[in-house]
Amino acid sequence: MTDRDTKMRILEAAIPLFAQKGYAAVGVRELAAQANVNLAMISYYFDGKVGVLKALMERFFEGYSRCLAHVDDDTITPEERVRRIISGIVNFVRENTDLALVTYNELPFDVPEIAELKAERVSSVMARLQNLIFEFGLDPADNVQKSMIGPFLPGMILNSFRVQPVLTRAFDVTMNDEYYERFIDTVTTIYLRGISGLADQSGRESPQ
Amino acid sequence: MTDRDTKMRILEAAIPLFAQKGYAAVGVRELAAQANVNLAMISYYFDGKVGVLKALMERFFEGYSRCLAHVDDDTITPEERVRRIISGIVNFVRENTDLALVTYNELPFDVPEIAELKAERVSSVMARLQNLIFEFGLDPADNVQKSMIGPFLPGMILNSFRVQPVLTRAFDVTMNDEYYERFIDTVTTIYLRGISGLADQSGRESPQ
Repeated sequence: MTDRDTKMRILEAAIPLFAQKGYAAVGVRELAAQANVNLAMISYYFDGKVGVLKALMERFFEGYSRCLAHVDDDTITPEERVRRIISGIVNFVRENTDLALVTYNELPFDVPEIAELKAERVSSVMARLQNLIFEFGLDPADNVQKSMIGPFLPGMILNSFRVQPVLTRAFDVTMNDEYYERFIDTVTTIYLRGISGLADQSGRESPQ
Repeated sequence: MTDRDTKMRILEAAIPLFAQKGYAAVGVRELAAQANVNLAMISYYFDGKVGVLKALMERFFEGYSRCLAHVDDDTITPEERVRRIISGIVNFVRENTDLALVTYNELPFDVPEIAELKAERVSSVMARLQNLIFEFGLDPADNVQKSMIGPFLPGMILNSFRVQPVLTRAFDVTMNDEYYERFIDTVTTIYLRGISGLADQSGRESPQ
């Protein structure tokens, strides 16, 4: 087995384990057994369990950032950019649900070794989205508003995947391609209408 | 120390511990030490650590349900009902942030002993809110739409509290009374505009 194979096996085994039980609940022995590698390999390649989590979060944010590629594409309208970004994020999270949930679920917990990584990546993806929403008439200097809108889109999408088992049971729905097409429409409508509602209000309060 | 005191001490100690480290990462010894009670008391009163989590979730959903009291209050407009519900939830979560985060953070994890409690409580609070949003013109028989809108409001509010440390750092904001008043306005605007956007669309697609 090559180095690359061993590393990949550890990461691939960690994704569903961390997603189902939570990072903290998974023992390093359990992870090694699931990956079918020697326990020592986890220290060797990742410097322990926290290094595995860090590598997974890096992978998530890399993919998520790629979904924001349309942010500056001025060949299409801002509305169309929002729709493509939402569609990209939904499809990315669909294809990488466990990876996305590992990242999202671990965001609030105190793991000192990755605090900096989390803050840096979250700020960076939020900053990129912010550029776009100011095209809808919001004030780019309004930090308070930015802090309120920033978590709104990722929260709306990821929370829906988080509670999927509950939703499936409670509403008797099947989450297939058709479902997610409508989900993209729904999130886009709520987001665009919501943002333009906020822009109307600030326009009313401080007319130029 | 009375029975009630001992139980309360265990619960009060568990709230910040579970919130900061995650339920799975907290050992039962650590919890007993933090509560300053004998280890055996946790088995005696709660049948183990999972019983403590269950009791905390019950407490959260009880408080959250009280925030929905205005759902059927037809002495005020549907818009005003939405605003009061959002204001109630934000204030409840502000006063019980750790309790709310323990519940929210544990929702996706597989803890068989509480799967039923989670599904039942989540469905029940969602069902109550659904009654209200159909006053804005959405179709009450549209289960797919309900499954998409259901997690939207609690997600928007709770996710903001979850990533508070990151938001505070990234945007240099102070989360005080004034902040939360504006947060309530912002969430209300996004919610009402979003819902009415969806109603406009379904009206357009299937005119009566």
